[in-house]
Amino acid sequence: MFLLDTFKRAVEEDAPFGDLTSESLLSNEKADGYIVAGDGGVMAGRPIFEAVMEGFSIEISQVVRDGNGFKTGDIVAILQGKASDILLIERTLLNLLGRACGIATLTSLFVKRAHPVPIYDTRKTLPLWRRLDKYAVRMGGGYNHRMGLSDVAMIKDNHKRLIGSLKEAVLKFRRLNPHAPLVVEVENEEELRSLEGLSVEWVLLDNMDVETLRYLIPLARDMGFKVEISGGVTLENVGRYASLKPDRISVGALTKSPPHVDFSLEIGS
Amino acid sequence: MFLLDTFKRAVEEDAPFGDLTSESLLSNEKADGYIVAGDGGVMAGRPIFEAVMEGFSIEISQVVRDGNGFKTGDIVAILQGKASDILLIERTLLNLLGRACGIATLTSLFVKRAHPVPIYDTRKTLPLWRRLDKYAVRMGGGYNHRMGLSDVAMIKDNHKRLIGSLKEAVLKFRRLNPHAPLVVEVENEEELRSLEGLSVEWVLLDNMDVETLRYLIPLARDMGFKVEISGGVTLENVGRYASLKPDRISVGALTKSPPHVDFSLEIGS
Amino acid sequence: MFLLDTFKRAVEEDAPFGDLTSESLLSNEKADGYIVAGDGGVMAGRPIFEAVMEGFSIEISQVVRDGNGFKTGDIVAILQGKASDILLIERTLLNLLGRACGIATLTSLFVKRAHPVPIYDTRKTLPLWRRLDKYAVRMGGGYNHRMGLSDVAMIKDNHKRLIGSLKEAVLKFRRLNPHAPLVVEVENEEELRSLEGLSVEWVLLDNMDVETLRYLIPLARDMGFKVEISGGVTLENVGRYASLKPDRISVGALTKSPPHVDFSLEIGS
Amino acid sequence: MFLLDTFKRAVEEDAPFGDLTSESLLSNEKADGYIVAGDGGVMAGRPIFEAVMEGFSIEISQVVRDGNGFKTGDIVAILQGKASDILLIERTLLNLLGRACGIATLTSLFVKRAHPVPIYDTRKTLPLWRRLDKYAVRMGGGYNHRMGLSDVAMIKDNHKRLIGSLKEAVLKFRRLNPHAPLVVEVENEEELRSLEGLSVEWVLLDNMDVETLRYLIPLARDMGFKVEISGGVTLENVGRYASLKPDRISVGALTKSPPHVDFSLEIGS
Amino acid sequence: MFLLDTFKRAVEEDAPFGDLTSESLLSNEKADGYIVAGDGGVMAGRPIFEAVMEGFSIEISQVVRDGNGFKTGDIVAILQGKASDILLIERTLLNLLGRACGIATLTSLFVKRAHPVPIYDTRKTLPLWRRLDKYAVRMGGGYNHRMGLSDVAMIKDNHKRLIGSLKEAVLKFRRLNPHAPLVVEVENEEELRSLEGLSVEWVLLDNMDVETLRYLIPLARDMGFKVEISGGVTLENVGRYASLKPDRISVGALTKSPPHVDFSLEIGS
Amino acid sequence: MFLLDTFKRAVEEDAPFGDLTSESLLSNEKADGYIVAGDGGVMAGRPIFEAVMEGFSIEISQVVRDGNGFKTGDIVAILQGKASDILLIERTLLNLLGRACGIATLTSLFVKRAHPVPIYDTRKTLPLWRRLDKYAVRMGGGYNHRMGLSDVAMIKDNHKRLIGSLKEAVLKFRRLNPHAPLVVEVENEEELRSLEGLSVEWVLLDNMDVETLRYLIPLARDMGFKVEISGGVTLENVGRYASLKPDRISVGALTKSPPHVDFSLEIGS
Repeated sequence: MFLLDTFKRAVEEDAPFGDLTSESLLSNEKADGYIVAGDGGVMAGRPIFEAVMEGFSIEISQVVRDGNGFKTGDIVAILQGKASDILLIERTLLNLLGRACGIATLTSLFVKRAHPVPIYDTRKTLPLWRRLDKYAVRMGGGYNHRMGLSDVAMIKDNHKRLIGSLKEAVLKFRRLNPHAPLVVEVENEEELRSLEGLSVEWVLLDNMDVETLRYLIPLARDMGFKVEISGGVTLENVGRYASLKPDRISVGALTKSPPHVDFSLEIGS
Repeated sequence: MFLLDTFKRAVEEDAPFGDLTSESLLSNEKADGYIVAGDGGVMAGRPIFEAVMEGFSIEISQVVRDGNGFKTGDIVAILQGKASDILLIERTLLNLLGRACGIATLTSLFVKRAHPVPIYDTRKTLPLWRRLDKYAVRMGGGYNHRMGLSDVAMIKDNHKRLIGSLKEAVLKFRRLNPHAPLVVEVENEEELRSLEGLSVEWVLLDNMDVETLRYLIPLARDMGFKVEISGGVTLENVGRYASLKPDRISVGALTKSPPHVDFSLEIGS
Repeated sequence: MFLLDTFKRAVEEDAPFGDLTSESLLSNEKADGYIVAGDGGVMAGRPIFEAVMEGFSIEISQVVRDGNGFKTGDIVAILQGKASDILLIERTLLNLLGRACGIATLTSLFVKRAHPVPIYDTRKTLPLWRRLDKYAVRMGGGYNHRMGLSDVAMIKDNHKRLIGSLKEAVLKFRRLNPHAPLVVEVENEEELRSLEGLSVEWVLLDNMDVETLRYLIPLARDMGFKVEISGGVTLENVGRYASLKPDRISVGALTKSPPHVDFSLEIGS
Repeated sequence: MFLLDTFKRAVEEDAPFGDLTSESLLSNEKADGYIVAGDGGVMAGRPIFEAVMEGFSIEISQVVRDGNGFKTGDIVAILQGKASDILLIERTLLNLLGRACGIATLTSLFVKRAHPVPIYDTRKTLPLWRRLDKYAVRMGGGYNHRMGLSDVAMIKDNHKRLIGSLKEAVLKFRRLNPHAPLVVEVENEEELRSLEGLSVEWVLLDNMDVETLRYLIPLARDMGFKVEISGGVTLENVGRYASLKPDRISVGALTKSPPHVDFSLEIGS
Repeated sequence: MFLLDTFKRAVEEDAPFGDLTSESLLSNEKADGYIVAGDGGVMAGRPIFEAVMEGFSIEISQVVRDGNGFKTGDIVAILQGKASDILLIERTLLNLLGRACGIATLTSLFVKRAHPVPIYDTRKTLPLWRRLDKYAVRMGGGYNHRMGLSDVAMIKDNHKRLIGSLKEAVLKFRRLNPHAPLVVEVENEEELRSLEGLSVEWVLLDNMDVETLRYLIPLARDMGFKVEISGGVTLENVGRYASLKPDRISVGALTKSPPHVDFSLEIGS
Repeated sequence: MFLLDTFKRAVEEDAPFGDLTSESLLSNEKADGYIVAGDGGVMAGRPIFEAVMEGFSIEISQVVRDGNGFKTGDIVAILQGKASDILLIERTLLNLLGRACGIATLTSLFVKRAHPVPIYDTRKTLPLWRRLDKYAVRMGGGYNHRMGLSDVAMIKDNHKRLIGSLKEAVLKFRRLNPHAPLVVEVENEEELRSLEGLSVEWVLLDNMDVETLRYLIPLARDMGFKVEISGGVTLENVGRYASLKPDRISVGALTKSPPHVDFSLEIGS
């Protein structure tokens, strides 16, 4: 439902004074529009299609279900409505669909290589489209990390510098928030050990090499923490990281600049 | 100015109920924040920095000017303000800056290889951030194609199918718009020839191979049209296309999924 | 579609806390409302009626089609719905319809007298209702000039003063925008001649007397420019201007303070 | 203050993607802009100038105070700021100022001719700009009738038809609203007499000729009502209506399509 | 209708990124939801139910009509729709319904004890929900005072201090507003007498004891004013105040912090 | 910062067409406004004061700091600005301040009686003002439960009915969300025991009597869960609940209809 407003604003961005071409050429003719995949990938389109259906008097039959795969040349959805309406929303729809499926597809690759360690996203999403980005991650088999700054606390290096030490920061946070879930970013063994006995759910081992991780993961777990790995994770190295058996791996690349899936819209009679 | 509202909404997306961590840890301490480049690239950040300065009581000294290059490790901008304000906008700022510089950087590569043929963008931009995307293209040395559906008419394949023929579509358009600039997408020689004598500023030769283009470009120009090439243009092949001397080349890849430039924000005392 | 939001805001302006009278007097009774013309004119109402239908559960049968004429006493449209809904939107609807038809009617008079020279509008429209104003111009047989500052460049006297000379301004503009359509306002022969060889689509001869125009129009055309006349054009003098055969005449008066067509809404049982 | 948002939206309507011309030609040069009157009239500009100052970093010295007169050629205000900012808001500012001063000027003419009977406005205002229209009426010496449907009840002919009779409508209204101010539109003597003894503040004698009014005004007053005249009031006949000494005359023409005052903005160095 | 936007924003406040629980547990299963009263009270729910029906594809059968009473355990409304939609809006609906019925219930108690003196509300409403609060007052048998600062003028102690005296303030107001309804707050007999002969509809006797009121009410009425009592009115003392026969009593407590009626939503199969 | 927009909308609700009274009586006179407490309580006003200062050119010196106490008659804040601005925002400010301080005051009473068991709020907040409500809870010494449906999952009775059993619901949730914090509402011992071995952070023992709780709290803790008590908690019984040593007690009453603190604004010269 909430995607509707954002989608409408995006169409308004594309056509602040309407579609000059269609308004000159078309009246009320109906048309079918076929969305054709130019690449293979994993589908993540339902929220986009719903926004179009609610806001623009266009019916959409989704041929490939979210979470399922498609290949080059597949028709993934069929639109029915006024031709001028379909052309009005075409570019906005394709821009978003290409991105969402790109995220789902990329996520599914990470998920396969990291199995059974779960893959999580980050806050490196497309501003104003986070909900869509995070939906696409789930369709690709990934999981959502915190939605933003308001729902889960995370103490990172900048907080540490401002407060003086990680331990102080954790203690200060806990005085105000006895029960809120807390993730703490850790840079080395000393920092990890300084958390001894503190009420922390997760430690985030950020930007460490495999050797260091191999040593620190069991240590952190012995201290009672769940362990997240992050930083510099790629399709190439995710398997190695996963072999270390952290509780989760979070990957900024899922949503940072994922390769878009190419789609085109072809009008039928 | 208008980026301000969008930027604020993006921060609100990230922190609908404020920043749980900073609000627990920080009071009113001032801090400096250094934006450090993790990759080299071309700068395109002024509109983003202005939105931050107008909306969030943060002062920003931009070290690298828009349009100039930077290398890994460079400090590109310095923020001064309340630490909690800086951390509140950090992620939104970095997400947008990484994308804008990514676009400027990629554009500058296309521009160099296509020289002296000008490189243009398309409507394959990030929904709700088109103005920023198109600004970044200019900072990379590219030019802006139409801003959207309202400002320039373009007759494309779907219009042709709906109207019956390209020629009919052009004639119909011109009856209603005697003077509006018009771009017409052409698929083959026959279509091009059907435009003989019609009032068309630009023909867009879409998705053609180099041989066909070598033949059609001079033909189109003899017919009195300016010539745009588009479709499947990559860093690898743009030089070959440019050697055919079209009037411009438009490249969806500039803004479709450009590799983001990596930035981090480091708080100083 | 986009008129819907603006229309709703306008109704909210009129009734921020609802309609005190109707809410006290009426329940759910249905009614028909007849929109009756108090003057003759040219119809331009469809976008307004569509906004009402989409936003307010009222059905509207438009009796007189947009672009067609009507005379005093004609019923131009019939509304069906809850009486209280009809009375809620009555004034907003009539205010907008009276203006839009006023513009269409006035435009049609200019168009007849200027025939076959096309009549164009300007940016002197009603703020926040430009799209409706420009639609009404088209219904009256006129054409739309640029939609605003973003879609077509126009170099005017204030730019000239700031840059130093028209020629410099044109050259500076072209360096950044090799292909964008450009209109240049010209004040006298010397300025016109200074444009020799520059890439300019249109010259706008602003506020000149007929004698000067008779001399400058062919000169401008010989230089390869299309010619627009503007400034001080009235129903009385438009015929004389048209006899000089410019490529177009733009008329601020179309939308500046057009005489509204008078309409009333009469409730039937 | 509230005009600010509307004004900004209006500028955004004019320049959804910025000012193509100024952004190509200008950098940060400062300029003065002189607003020069092309006609004489009465000033009503302060709320517009305040919106510009709050929203756009432009300083404005208002030379002619609101409510005072000016003549052709007078400089009425001086703007100081970045040239590109001044040109960005120029058209929106002039469109609104021309209208507001047009309303104030026209109102002042009605006020003079009706003296000492007060002139009131109506709801026939520019949708989304009612507050500005009504402000301009006051600057011209007129008074504001109800702001909209929510603040004062008015029983009109359509209500009467729906309820059955004026008297029934008044009684029904009073049961729910024992003390709310109430205006009742009356079409003839019989209707007026039917209000005998009812709790009504104002009767509105709508669209009646002078003879009928000469008879009904004292009758209504004897019945204890204040008397408003409305309908078809023009500059030509308002003196005659005023000579009948109603308590007020309301004039739709003040805000329906008032002749705009012509202003231009001239950039100085 | 206008409640719809506010209601949607409230749901968005509650679920900026959707309903984590339901989205994980439910698909498209339909459900019935029964709203059950935990206390007795007076119903005021229609505008809330309408907003839900318009905005969320949920059908609602209202069992207890607005203005009618209900007792503990009563089912007051039945919702039908997707279970996930019902759970999404549950809390927002119950929060608003509990408040609106709380206001209606409290109002009905004041109304009974003050009979036949009418009970009015004040501007001490829930910001952004005034229209709902005032609707609930009417459902409880009360009446609405002014909707806000724009519709009725009220000269209060702070104005008096700024202007110098009540009389001066009234005279100044009347010069600009010859006919607008005016309420004047009066602190003692001297102030009341200073209004002799002035055009004032209502005097508001604020925060006075019963003895003073017993003396001043007839005096004010003799001077031609209607009399409102306000300030410190409670369920305990309202009967005594009413026995003094003022024209109305306004009660801030109706909407200031009314005890909410407790409701729960129970999902059936 | 985000309160600013909501606050402005609230003022606009109160004065859609400005403040009729002040605009008639006042020009630009400056004034001081003293906010005086009519009751004693705990302060929670900073976000409100900040919104006023940012949006309305009013300076505010807060005399009593947030979280501190005040008594009847205390001046808690001093406003300086244009008198008309101060009167424009007076009612909105007082309505919100009265509520926020009411919440802080009530919370502080619960906190004292429950010590050392922490008191948490719920989602029974004022729609559109949740952030303010939850801020006030913290100022009173309480803690914030989840901000809404998006940040923490909670499986409640309605979910159980829809899924079939609590255990099934928990298992289904965990498959999709291996690590997300989860609260599960439990109605009796059997349900509690059914959670044996499941990954659940909190059990919420809802609406149980003290005897049952005395038995179930240690049982739940033995099973490895943290224990929250909720439902029917009042100032009278909270001490008894606290003596059972749950991990937290959540209290809907904090924000459901808290008694407002009475404030008045007095203008000085």
